[in-house]
Amino acid sequence: MTDWQRDRKARDARIAAGRAHAEGKVVPAARAVDLLEAVLRPGDRVCLEGDNQKQADCLARALSACDPARVHDLHMVQSGIVLPEHLDVFEQGIAKRLDYSYSGPQGARIARMLYGGQIQLGAVHTYLELFARYFVDLTPNVALIAGVSADREGNLYTGPNTEDTPTVVEATAFKNGVVIAQVNAIVDRVPRVDIPADRIDFVVEADRPFYVEPLFTRDPAAMTETQILMAMMAIKGIYAEYGIRRLNHGIGFGTAAIELLLPTYGERLGLKKKIATHWALNPHPTLIPAIESGWVEQVHCFGSEVGMDRYIRARPDVFFTGADGSLRSNRAFCQTAGLYACDLFIGSTLQIDLAGHSSTVTTNRVAGFGGAPNMGCDPHGRRHPSDTWMKAGREALVTGDPALMRGRKLVVQLVETFGDKLVPAFVERLDALELAKKIGLELAPVMVYGDDVTHIVTEEGIANLLLCRDADEREQAIRGVAGYTEVGRGRDRAAVEALRARGIVRRPEDLGIEPLDADRSLLAARSIKDLVHWSGGLYEPPARFRNW
Amino acid sequence: MTDWQRDRKARDARIAAGRAHAEGKVVPAARAVDLLEAVLRPGDRVCLEGDNQKQADCLARALSACDPARVHDLHMVQSGIVLPEHLDVFEQGIAKRLDYSYSGPQGARIARMLYGGQIQLGAVHTYLELFARYFVDLTPNVALIAGVSADREGNLYTGPNTEDTPTVVEATAFKNGVVIAQVNAIVDRVPRVDIPADRIDFVVEADRPFYVEPLFTRDPAAMTETQILMAMMAIKGIYAEYGIRRLNHGIGFGTAAIELLLPTYGERLGLKKKIATHWALNPHPTLIPAIESGWVEQVHCFGSEVGMDRYIRARPDVFFTGADGSLRSNRAFCQTAGLYACDLFIGSTLQIDLAGHSSTVTTNRVAGFGGAPNMGCDPHGRRHPSDTWMKAGREALVTGDPALMRGRKLVVQLVETFGDKLVPAFVERLDALELAKKIGLELAPVMVYGDDVTHIVTEEGIANLLLCRDADEREQAIRGVAGYTEVGRGRDRAAVEALRARGIVRRPEDLGIEPLDADRSLLAARSIKDLVHWSGGLYEPPARFRNW
Repeated sequence: MTDWQRDRKARDARIAAGRAHAEGKVVPAARAVDLLEAVLRPGDRVCLEGDNQKQADCLARALSACDPARVHDLHMVQSGIVLPEHLDVFEQGIAKRLDYSYSGPQGARIARMLYGGQIQLGAVHTYLELFARYFVDLTPNVALIAGVSADREGNLYTGPNTEDTPTVVEATAFKNGVVIAQVNAIVDRVPRVDIPADRIDFVVEADRPFYVEPLFTRDPAAMTETQILMAMMAIKGIYAEYGIRRLNHGIGFGTAAIELLLPTYGERLGLKKKIATHWALNPHPTLIPAIESGWVEQVHCFGSEVGMDRYIRARPDVFFTGADGSLRSNRAFCQTAGLYACDLFIGSTLQIDLAGHSSTVTTNRVAGFGGAPNMGCDPHGRRHPSDTWMKAGREALVTGDPALMRGRKLVVQLVETFGDKLVPAFVERLDALELAKKIGLELAPVMVYGDDVTHIVTEEGIANLLLCRDADEREQAIRGVAGYTEVGRGRDRAAVEALRARGIVRRPEDLGIEPLDADRSLLAARSIKDLVHWSGGLYEPPARFRNW
Repeated sequence: MTDWQRDRKARDARIAAGRAHAEGKVVPAARAVDLLEAVLRPGDRVCLEGDNQKQADCLARALSACDPARVHDLHMVQSGIVLPEHLDVFEQGIAKRLDYSYSGPQGARIARMLYGGQIQLGAVHTYLELFARYFVDLTPNVALIAGVSADREGNLYTGPNTEDTPTVVEATAFKNGVVIAQVNAIVDRVPRVDIPADRIDFVVEADRPFYVEPLFTRDPAAMTETQILMAMMAIKGIYAEYGIRRLNHGIGFGTAAIELLLPTYGERLGLKKKIATHWALNPHPTLIPAIESGWVEQVHCFGSEVGMDRYIRARPDVFFTGADGSLRSNRAFCQTAGLYACDLFIGSTLQIDLAGHSSTVTTNRVAGFGGAPNMGCDPHGRRHPSDTWMKAGREALVTGDPALMRGRKLVVQLVETFGDKLVPAFVERLDALELAKKIGLELAPVMVYGDDVTHIVTEEGIANLLLCRDADEREQAIRGVAGYTEVGRGRDRAAVEALRARGIVRRPEDLGIEPLDADRSLLAARSIKDLVHWSGGLYEPPARFRNW
């Protein structure tokens, strides 16, 4: 006779075992290891909340301090591999299998551990894709999450970094899982309820506030004239031309330069209120001048950004905030917005090949792509037209009944022909393919596939891949903006000029842009201090960005 | 000087105005019209919760009873146009513009009103796409939602039909919107908190419980042998062949037949635990025999289904349920799961053309596609391999570096060559194109585009479009399973036989299926009563499905 409530009873037993270390739901940090050893079972799927920003670091330390004789063979299913502890648990035998999305700082160590067989890799997902699997075949047995505060019943306030928490908790709590939250403080009443108490089983009072990385802060002082030139081309040659109102910016100096040029160069072009009004974006400090100049109608955020809290509180008409005044971010919804409600994604990459495939994975690093492949794809499930999307669709249309025409999402790669240390961004073959072979990945870690990319912007010009009619034209269009890289020097000059005549390759002069105008004086803010001024003193940059 | 909190203050003023009709947050049904007239402003974007299942019907009646001199020019942004009141408000001048996803029963009336200019149409979205826009450019000013109960603080229990509610509330409450919930009862303590009180501004005690449509109930008694034959082909020719474990079934008798054949025909083929283990699916009553036979590991649901509550409560190891025991559904997450975590979508349609484009829209009805275009597309943002997905990718691979191969989602159309009233399902040109022209739609209402479809299953056989290498092969493969329709009779017999030799067209006999075996005795349940038996008496079908 089938026991139809086996998992449910097992959950109840785990909670009962954990309660021995708690007062009600509350557990002191010093007993976090006891709690985890009581609650976890070998082979459990565990989500240790860690994404590209906030970290359940107290629980990460506790997990890595568990006795591998008791807690072992865990299957970690989490957005980010960011802290050393996230990989320590694999070396210690506590964890065995890994499904994740992003690993900035730990990319090289993951590659080594994969190669050495210390990690059994499931897959490197996009965020939204991993969230999707939480509800299907990667549902966590235990979720270890982070919030700012909780009351004694377990009502949780995440603060502005809500991020993945509601999604992780929903998948776990409603499928017989156990949810353990670390908080900076236990309070009588939380400022707002981000997660209701009946989804939280334990609250660990952390020994120190959870760590948040200021990942989306770019110092305007470090912006180059090349980046400014590329930003001008993107604004005039793409944003203005397609009338892009709903968009997402990937991380980087290039996109930050665009943000800083809106109130200056964009204003001069008469584009205010016509482009860049609705955003799916983290609260980039470099967006402050555009907001203050009245460019931005609203911004929905994946997460928050260190130092932006007071500014966001003062701008509730722009950002999504709670009754308490602080940001309510939500990575799942913002990724969905980026996928289906934005007309443009623009980001950067380390390598692009002759077909337009790109990757940030190199031979020694498995970085993970976070949201880029999701934001940077043409979603076939989209059914609402917009002028931008339809214009792109018309450009791409080659054959078939025009009545069946659909639009295209704009996916733009903004990349200098030579990157850090003068490594060429354009290559014959992606290093990612070599890495895939070396560590035995079934699927090569391509960030954005060539058939999804619509434009490539370099300091040499813009290649419009939508207008290319075959693979040869595509290759020459890419070579035609690849500058002095080997790929660029391998161009067929006549072919590139023919593409230029058709507007497929466009140089700054074709766009009416004088490269000498690409000057730092065009930046609405030239330093972090300028950003603070723009914000009326509300933006509070982290110490490492202050030099005054 | 910019007022950066104008919208926030306007929200506070709306709430203050509404409070005049409330005791705390609680408003009697008799004052719902007063409340809405106090809170709404002309031109507001309003989400009146109504999807394919539950309806905020008390609030719909109240809205349609508002004085158009006070409440007018609303922009309705909601999943479903289902109740007459949803369109009455347009005739009355209360609403003007519409963005929606699905309209089963009102499809013909919408078409007439669009044609007559009584509705300004934004677009007909997928659910997930509309949700995405809630966070970008279609954020509601006011949300009118439905729950089972609330406490006096406003903590809301949605019951098993959680559906769209968390998404709608999140977009509205955190962006200076007002949230009004109708509930069947005010209680001292809700069974579980689906929406925390600080996101709910008003609670209207409805005059009667909100309506839920039993949309996903299919009576096995009405299943035909043709549907059984097609289900056998799908199981043996697709599910078994690709080893499909993670899937979504569209609505219809065809997919219900597959569900009922798993414990009989599927068992005989030795497929238990090998296919159809993880589901993104409403709680279909026809899935009960497969669940009871141990086929199903877990099911995440978009919404609930009338009569399934007690059964779901008794099966918490299969369904996502709360600590209170009832289902927690979530349309946004389940649509995401269908998009990114499922390897197969199988559904039906009214028309398919020679390129494989399909639509349920006819010349007189604008039905909306709900989730089908989202579930039924190949998501380019996917980055995790599975055996199923990679096998489909290998079949589709035509050119390029094999190291760059990616997988393909299986998108299957399950369709009888002649539908209701012997209308052919295969056509030269979709009626949707004619409709688009007639009412001036910018984008033709195509449900699934041909380039996303991988297989078409009819009673004549299976066409594998992945293996087709050009448009001609594709056309002949489609004609080759189109039976005695004009499209079918127009086939090039030699070409179809050549495709058959390559396994692109497969007949029942090619699959080792004897059409005479397609007998109703194969159905694990042959009636609603059988389903009740299978459930151990836990399933409680609605009265209209009971005939004993």
